[in-house]
Amino acid sequence: GLVLVKNPHLDLMEEDVLYHLDLGTKTHNLPAMFGDIKFVCVGGSPTRMRAFAQFMQRELGLPGAGEDVADICVGSDRYAMYRAGPVLSISHGMGIPSISIMLHELIKLLHHAKCQDVTIIRIGTSGGLGIEAGSVVITDMAVDSSLQPRFEQVVLDDVVVRSTKLDKDLAEELLACSRDIPDFPTLIGHTMCTYDFYEGQGRLDGALCSFSSEKKLEYLRRAYDAGVRNIEMESTAFAALCGLCGLRGECCHFHLL
Amino acid sequence: GLVLVKNPHLDLMEEDVLYHLDLGTKTHNLPAMFGDIKFVCVGGSPTRMRAFAQFMQRELGLPGAGEDVADICVGSDRYAMYRAGPVLSISHGMGIPSISIMLHELIKLLHHAKCQDVTIIRIGTSGGLGIEAGSVVITDMAVDSSLQPRFEQVVLDDVVVRSTKLDKDLAEELLACSRDIPDFPTLIGHTMCTYDFYEGQGRLDGALCSFSSEKKLEYLRRAYDAGVRNIEMESTAFAALCGLCGLRGECCHFHLL
Repeated sequence: GLVLVKNPHLDLMEEDVLYHLDLGTKTHNLPAMFGDIKFVCVGGSPTRMRAFAQFMQRELGLPGAGEDVADICVGSDRYAMYRAGPVLSISHGMGIPSISIMLHELIKLLHHAKCQDVTIIRIGTSGGLGIEAGSVVITDMAVDSSLQPRFEQVVLDDVVVRSTKLDKDLAEELLACSRDIPDFPTLIGHTMCTYDFYEGQGRLDGALCSFSSEKKLEYLRRAYDAGVRNIEMESTAFAALCGLCGLRGECCHFHLL
Repeated sequence: GLVLVKNPHLDLMEEDVLYHLDLGTKTHNLPAMFGDIKFVCVGGSPTRMRAFAQFMQRELGLPGAGEDVADICVGSDRYAMYRAGPVLSISHGMGIPSISIMLHELIKLLHHAKCQDVTIIRIGTSGGLGIEAGSVVITDMAVDSSLQPRFEQVVLDDVVVRSTKLDKDLAEELLACSRDIPDFPTLIGHTMCTYDFYEGQGRLDGALCSFSSEKKLEYLRRAYDAGVRNIEMESTAFAALCGLCGLRGECCHFHLL
């Protein structure tokens, strides 16, 4: 149940600096700070991840509930990190490059801290596809803009294709939990991940838009028919990195509009 | 000298909401707020862009210099925006998807505000390639990880290839300015833009690393021989979007380490 790093160079390094988290193996006692972490919840917005940590404090009946929570990465303005008992709540900004930097450093953090049996859940917002506003989509598979279940990672100048499977049992567990919360219709479906919010998602309101609304509808219909129920900007990289490093991972997205 | 939007759908919209900037055409008088803007400086970190606005206030001898500056996008935690006279200072987070969202909304903002002759400069940090620490690289051309001067934009499920040329005259102007500041060696060179900080840039200290240090060196040497002097994560999208929308743009990157 340990978190795996797959980098032979790491063992040869005297110090590992997690630059964008403002943490490091020489400056911080990572096992003491994080060794008992069992859940990591991540989302784009720092404000929301702070509110989530406060919510978890109340839900878990932890001392200090209702008070402010401290940003563990206060020395960096790239990401914010809060803790509530065994739960870490971390922001990752928007898009695959931004979440990838955070995940590389988080995975190394959990590895250095010798954490075991960690579950990671992305709790973000997304655009829904043919579903009711206010719905929650639990992702069974993340697909790219060609509707393929893959993440193409550029390594130097090679392209490596990675699997974007998520944990099916975890998805079913989360769906079972959702039955106790009748306010939010919850379903399991594929999630499409794009590199661009405007042209990449077929939005008609960007600074550039070269397609017709008919072409957009045809594309989104094709995605719906392939099982896609929502669109966002991080899930393929999230699924690929968590899968490779032994983190049990899931994405739950809230469809606002 | 107007900023161009290339989207026929925009004219048909009753209201344009710039979601991630927390601004809009119905809620804000954009011409009154921004009509006299002549320069936009953008960078990844919100803290740094706040410090830059304060620096510009002092440099321009504006009233209120030395005092705090207000975040114009205070209702959004996605980006921060500050103003110092004719200069806007905006953060864009990390990576192409994040800067693209900001640029789409900024371009529409400048368009709605009827701004004229706007110059935009990315002032970020980057990793240097065979150059002295503390150097500044002014980008004459942004290249992708295959060393090609192009930005591949996914539009729905098509790939559109865009030019990443920047403004040569502006590059020369900036280089001339640098001669008055002897502390920072400044040069003009190509900038490589990657989607990933760890595996994409040949770093040996990520959670995953499947290549040898020899392969990394061979790749970086090839990049250097092709004229690349620094590596970062936003320049190709920046060059492509600014070029298409009539913004005179340049990238100046500071090489810290």
